[in-house]
Amino acid sequence: RNTENDSVQVEKAEQSQQWFDKIQLRGYAQLRYNRLFETNPQLQCDQCDKSWGENGGFFFRRIRMIFYGDIHERVYFYIQPDFASGGGNFAQIRDAYFDLGLDADQEFRLRIGQSKVPFGFENLQSSQNRIPLDRNDGLNSAVANERDIGLMLYYAPKKIRERFRYLVSSGLKGSGDYGVLALGLYNGQTANQPEKNNSMHAVTRATYPFELPSGQIIEGSLQGYTGKFVIERSTLTDNDQREFREFRYGPSVIVYPQPFGLQAEFNWGRGPEFNPETMNVEDKPIRGGYVLGSYYIEHGKNTYIPFTRYHYYNGGKKHEFDATKHRVKELELGVEWQPHSNFELVAMYTISDRTFENSLNPQNRQKGNLLRLQAQINF
Amino acid sequence: RNTENDSVQVEKAEQSQQWFDKIQLRGYAQLRYNRLFETNPQLQCDQCDKSWGENGGFFFRRIRMIFYGDIHERVYFYIQPDFASGGGNFAQIRDAYFDLGLDADQEFRLRIGQSKVPFGFENLQSSQNRIPLDRNDGLNSAVANERDIGLMLYYAPKKIRERFRYLVSSGLKGSGDYGVLALGLYNGQTANQPEKNNSMHAVTRATYPFELPSGQIIEGSLQGYTGKFVIERSTLTDNDQREFREFRYGPSVIVYPQPFGLQAEFNWGRGPEFNPETMNVEDKPIRGGYVLGSYYIEHGKNTYIPFTRYHYYNGGKKHEFDATKHRVKELELGVEWQPHSNFELVAMYTISDRTFENSLNPQNRQKGNLLRLQAQINF
Amino acid sequence: RNTENDSVQVEKAEQSQQWFDKIQLRGYAQLRYNRLFETNPQLQCDQCDKSWGENGGFFFRRIRMIFYGDIHERVYFYIQPDFASGGGNFAQIRDAYFDLGLDADQEFRLRIGQSKVPFGFENLQSSQNRIPLDRNDGLNSAVANERDIGLMLYYAPKKIRERFRYLVSSGLKGSGDYGVLALGLYNGQTANQPEKNNSMHAVTRATYPFELPSGQIIEGSLQGYTGKFVIERSTLTDNDQREFREFRYGPSVIVYPQPFGLQAEFNWGRGPEFNPETMNVEDKPIRGGYVLGSYYIEHGKNTYIPFTRYHYYNGGKKHEFDATKHRVKELELGVEWQPHSNFELVAMYTISDRTFENSLNPQNRQKGNLLRLQAQINF
Repeated sequence: RNTENDSVQVEKAEQSQQWFDKIQLRGYAQLRYNRLFETNPQLQCDQCDKSWGENGGFFFRRIRMIFYGDIHERVYFYIQPDFASGGGNFAQIRDAYFDLGLDADQEFRLRIGQSKVPFGFENLQSSQNRIPLDRNDGLNSAVANERDIGLMLYYAPKKIRERFRYLVSSGLKGSGDYGVLALGLYNGQTANQPEKNNSMHAVTRATYPFELPSGQIIEGSLQGYTGKFVIERSTLTDNDQREFREFRYGPSVIVYPQPFGLQAEFNWGRGPEFNPETMNVEDKPIRGGYVLGSYYIEHGKNTYIPFTRYHYYNGGKKHEFDATKHRVKELELGVEWQPHSNFELVAMYTISDRTFENSLNPQNRQKGNLLRLQAQINF
Repeated sequence: RNTENDSVQVEKAEQSQQWFDKIQLRGYAQLRYNRLFETNPQLQCDQCDKSWGENGGFFFRRIRMIFYGDIHERVYFYIQPDFASGGGNFAQIRDAYFDLGLDADQEFRLRIGQSKVPFGFENLQSSQNRIPLDRNDGLNSAVANERDIGLMLYYAPKKIRERFRYLVSSGLKGSGDYGVLALGLYNGQTANQPEKNNSMHAVTRATYPFELPSGQIIEGSLQGYTGKFVIERSTLTDNDQREFREFRYGPSVIVYPQPFGLQAEFNWGRGPEFNPETMNVEDKPIRGGYVLGSYYIEHGKNTYIPFTRYHYYNGGKKHEFDATKHRVKELELGVEWQPHSNFELVAMYTISDRTFENSLNPQNRQKGNLLRLQAQINF
Repeated sequence: RNTENDSVQVEKAEQSQQWFDKIQLRGYAQLRYNRLFETNPQLQCDQCDKSWGENGGFFFRRIRMIFYGDIHERVYFYIQPDFASGGGNFAQIRDAYFDLGLDADQEFRLRIGQSKVPFGFENLQSSQNRIPLDRNDGLNSAVANERDIGLMLYYAPKKIRERFRYLVSSGLKGSGDYGVLALGLYNGQTANQPEKNNSMHAVTRATYPFELPSGQIIEGSLQGYTGKFVIERSTLTDNDQREFREFRYGPSVIVYPQPFGLQAEFNWGRGPEFNPETMNVEDKPIRGGYVLGSYYIEHGKNTYIPFTRYHYYNGGKKHEFDATKHRVKELELGVEWQPHSNFELVAMYTISDRTFENSLNPQNRQKGNLLRLQAQINF
């Protein structure tokens, strides 16, 4: 008897040496359609979703495959290509990072490679978990594609690491574990872009998920970064400035949806912005943020999450041509339906007022409403 | 005893939760060489194989990796990148679709994402299974890369779904299961292309694989689609038309190779075509099709399939520059050799007469013969 | 009892049919930083590492995923995309080859597809195993990215195939098994480039890893190739030559690090090279090579490998614009640290004198020193 049990265990131990035990694969995909009840086809948002407005149609916003695993007691790897990139559904890296545990419990971790810059809860939260279809312009304009390449140091006590894990695995749509304290150095030109100057960006963040006696979890954060960014702009003469200093800072508050959720973030700073009056790019102030309310309803095997978000942004977008000037006010009302863990459907009515101006289009304010639809598959 | 059996079963049940049980991987690759016994290096076919003719050499026509699986009792996913794309062996999506079963037997399935447009048997049949090296111009010009993005509804009775599966697994080179009835809405600009207008394409197809008392299976189909397509063309003035209405329809007949196979398809329609006399792109009639004969010979572990195909096309190719005018007559004689299920070799002698004319090359008729070779690996 | 053993074995046998037993996955990634103690930001090497010098920063040199396996008793497949390609971390094929065993022991193997051209030990050795950060200019300029598409025939006796395997698995940083005799035909325009003429390249190589009675292994090789290469160049007039004949040949000697290692290679030949005096591309002689010394120190679980390399190149680089003229002298001193098999850190001080001149920059000699750092993850 024991012999056989042993043989089974030996077999199991042998299996634990197999590649498929060390390397795992999962993924998700998001298919969109944005043209129902559209009142203004010129209303668009390039950073949000390239299929908004005129000539849009069915569109894959994301096709993600995530290869990951604990390959050593102190080394974790995470490589996430997106297969809906490059304008023609090419495969391009989003994350490619490696965590080196500095202590046995991995309370201190050094993350090397391309990964999310710890600035803003919604930026850190996976798009697989976010309720509104796109991130808010206010904080997402800080780091296009949320990621950069460099070194990040994270610290979190073991107990809080477990709490971060629970906030994701429970369906409460947490951000994942980016430490309670974070400190990073990175190129600063955003994900998959070559570095364009000789200086680095620096970022820091402090966050803490408090658990009330009722079980309700509330997370508060403070974060900031600074660096020099090189923009792309028109009419490059010897006098035109391309490198601009930028910085941002701000707080986040998350009341996790148990069952009523409330989420608010804001940031202030300075950075490059196109000025349509001077037709030049200038150093300007930045401010923006949002507030999101949601309510979780379990009904049989189904989960329904009605939600609303208001967000606002006044500033340039450094990663767009001429550091395009943006003035955004947007109200969203929607519902997410999860019949099971492998499929989600979101319908979201958007009432929007967007100004986006650069030298190619220096007078461009667009208002309008539309219904946005997304089917998401998790595998 | 029972305890141990249980423990084995428990272990097995646990394993069925593992990622590698839900997600599977397979693939195939095709390496070509087209320069033997070539009589005319100007004879080329861009849609078929970019290594035909002048300056061609060894060439990967396809390197496919297919990630797929039943991730839920009613959800199936299928993501197929090609690693021989983008002109430099980049990874680009071919399929990325998700089947949502609408009933317990999944007789009704809603397919969302990028997948094959159900128009034509040879278009739907995998290149892994097709005998001639390239699809016929007549029906393949309807949907370049065979795919588009949108929603497809498929219906097939359980019994016929099993028959469709058998037609592939048995080596009879079936098309796979695209329903006996199909109905779809899609962007219409073909795979991996952004939508370029505000209207959708619609497609429908009916097919049925009849099984005779002898066991011989014969499949008959009818299919059609319509929509508006936006072409790329030269000298764009305000008067130049870019959007053209197009439609096509036609029948398919397949006598499965048990051991003698016969396959014939044809389609008629209208669409844009370059006119070298007016140097303009005009709405023109389309017609084209083919007939293919094959014979299966089993010899020990080897399978040999001698085959011949004649195909013909009169029309424009909407996805080529200026909707290039095509006049194609081609006769192929070849043999496929399968020493085992992981390797196939095809040699095919091609006698061709191809006219392909646009504003860059308005006088271009090329005739010639060549031997074409392909090694295929299935993994 | 036996029943149960059988059931376990049956289960095991069934498992051996699973996709994850036939297909395996592994990979590695290299993150670089080259800006410490840099004395000349104009000192750069495009073929080595695009993040050298002015405006460089953190940089992924390689992100490799390798799908491979014995899919049949005589068929092996190997598909290796790199996810740090195309200028924006896109996925692009490095290897995509298939070995067909011609005899039961696979002493004779036909390799079809894109794979390494058997010219030079360091070229064949994986970057995962190489000690210096980049390959030497002298031999690596023969085949950019080391690979091409075509047919390779390899022969090695069973016993030597085992020795080649041991030289990698033991950590002695062998080249892998490219046969003791190799013969190949390939396009000649290097990896992922379309063929540009109507002639093939031919390569041959003989190598043998002698094992001394002491256990010390010494490998000696001779290799050569010839063909016609089409360069990219400026001011293309009807008189400008684009196709050039080229050939190279040379020896390699490797004393494996047991614990002291010595490695030397050299090659001579002719090929295209930009001449800054005539501002034309001309047929010129080529010579280049290197000598590398290393010493293996095991200390607890750690391995330390101090090393030094001097390398030298006089010739054009055919794959660069105008077949850029190169004059390279470089001395490197460094150490590789492996705390365990999943992580490696290399620090390398480089003393360099590089001339790289073409029509865009016909006067360009750069001297300088810098410290180069690399973190490598193996998964």
